[in-house]
Amino acid sequence: MRYELYYWPSIQGRGEFVRLALEEAGADYIDVARRKGGMAKLERLLDDPRVKPPFAPPFLKCGPLLIAQTANILLFLGARHGLAPKNEAGRLWVHQLQFTIADLVVEAHDVHHPIGSGLYYEDQKREAKRAAESFIAERSPKYLSYCERVLQRGRGSYLAGARLSYADLSLFQIVEGLRYAFPRTMKQWEKKIPRVIGLRNRVAARPRIAAYLASDARIPFNESGIFRHYPELDRSA
Amino acid sequence: MRYELYYWPSIQGRGEFVRLALEEAGADYIDVARRKGGMAKLERLLDDPRVKPPFAPPFLKCGPLLIAQTANILLFLGARHGLAPKNEAGRLWVHQLQFTIADLVVEAHDVHHPIGSGLYYEDQKREAKRAAESFIAERSPKYLSYCERVLQRGRGSYLAGARLSYADLSLFQIVEGLRYAFPRTMKQWEKKIPRVIGLRNRVAARPRIAAYLASDARIPFNESGIFRHYPELDRSA
Repeated sequence: MRYELYYWPSIQGRGEFVRLALEEAGADYIDVARRKGGMAKLERLLDDPRVKPPFAPPFLKCGPLLIAQTANILLFLGARHGLAPKNEAGRLWVHQLQFTIADLVVEAHDVHHPIGSGLYYEDQKREAKRAAESFIAERSPKYLSYCERVLQRGRGSYLAGARLSYADLSLFQIVEGLRYAFPRTMKQWEKKIPRVIGLRNRVAARPRIAAYLASDARIPFNESGIFRHYPELDRSA
Repeated sequence: MRYELYYWPSIQGRGEFVRLALEEAGADYIDVARRKGGMAKLERLLDDPRVKPPFAPPFLKCGPLLIAQTANILLFLGARHGLAPKNEAGRLWVHQLQFTIADLVVEAHDVHHPIGSGLYYEDQKREAKRAAESFIAERSPKYLSYCERVLQRGRGSYLAGARLSYADLSLFQIVEGLRYAFPRTMKQWEKKIPRVIGLRNRVAARPRIAAYLASDARIPFNESGIFRHYPELDRSA
């Protein structure tokens, strides 16, 4: 069964967490909105009264199943492609980590959109500067040191132990995103989270991920996505 | 097996979504931090190097299992207590709805804390006023009309059909929270979402939920929780 991924075609965004899982799984999928006529197809599906409506992209079509919400899609793919433990405790643990990563994703986005996602960055620049200070000083260190602690307490090189899970792929993406958005901050921070960076490197070196990252399929980070590089929001040099 | 719920003792907060599920299930549980010495127990568990660390409360202990993240706890309880469909498609659909509700919860919180959760409301009042305008004009209507559409397209009186799921309990809580925080806004809005309000009423009338709501176990809304009533953030009279 070929998967159909529906997501905005010009950003990594939340869809990237799904793309990474599909790539690592070697799954057969098409990134619908990046094909000719794909955006129209995405919009039709969002408005189709015959389907259970997703609130927003990304969503994944798999035969009759239409699954939305990033972590929910990963729960589904994790079980199908060995990207999560099979036992209940392990499955819930990986899902729990994914939720925590999802919370960080929201906060990383809201740094540049603290007042409202319907407004432009330019209309909330001053507020974004204050939000960035809080994100850099408190929030992102809290999340990253949490992930470091999870790896420290764990018994393997991945978050859930010896085997890679979808949460590891997502943590890789977090590091990449933070490096892009806040390079000066991350330069200082990375020394404090050696296990997280080690995990990032192991994920990047996995053959399918490495091939994907080197391909045109990987959309570059840009200022329409979640992780945006606005130098004025990063720590001063 | 008696569940142990760990959550802040003086607010509804995210823990309330779990409390509602435990109550509807008629589950045997203790709300640990509301008992004598319970807060110390919560804090010890957060720092216990022998457990898989939760990022933050709420978390639920069930024998050797320690499960954190609200929607993850609900996934677990839903399967155990018939609060979610048994088939994969239904299970994923309810979980998907829960994620969307969780996104709304974040946004409802961030209205009064747009700059940072580490700062006081008083230190971000001006920004909160702007954030509230966006929340009232765009975001909460988008979420509520989405839920209305789900009910309209569905084939039952609950979000997933004829049977109640944990997502229905959470949507009930959303309506209650929005009514508390934004009474003037909700008064105007409720006419537009008759199915959501109908669902809210059906949930409130369920015997176990009704008994819980009338009891001391239900903590009143207050200005330390997610839904806070700051009249200056509501629509003008």
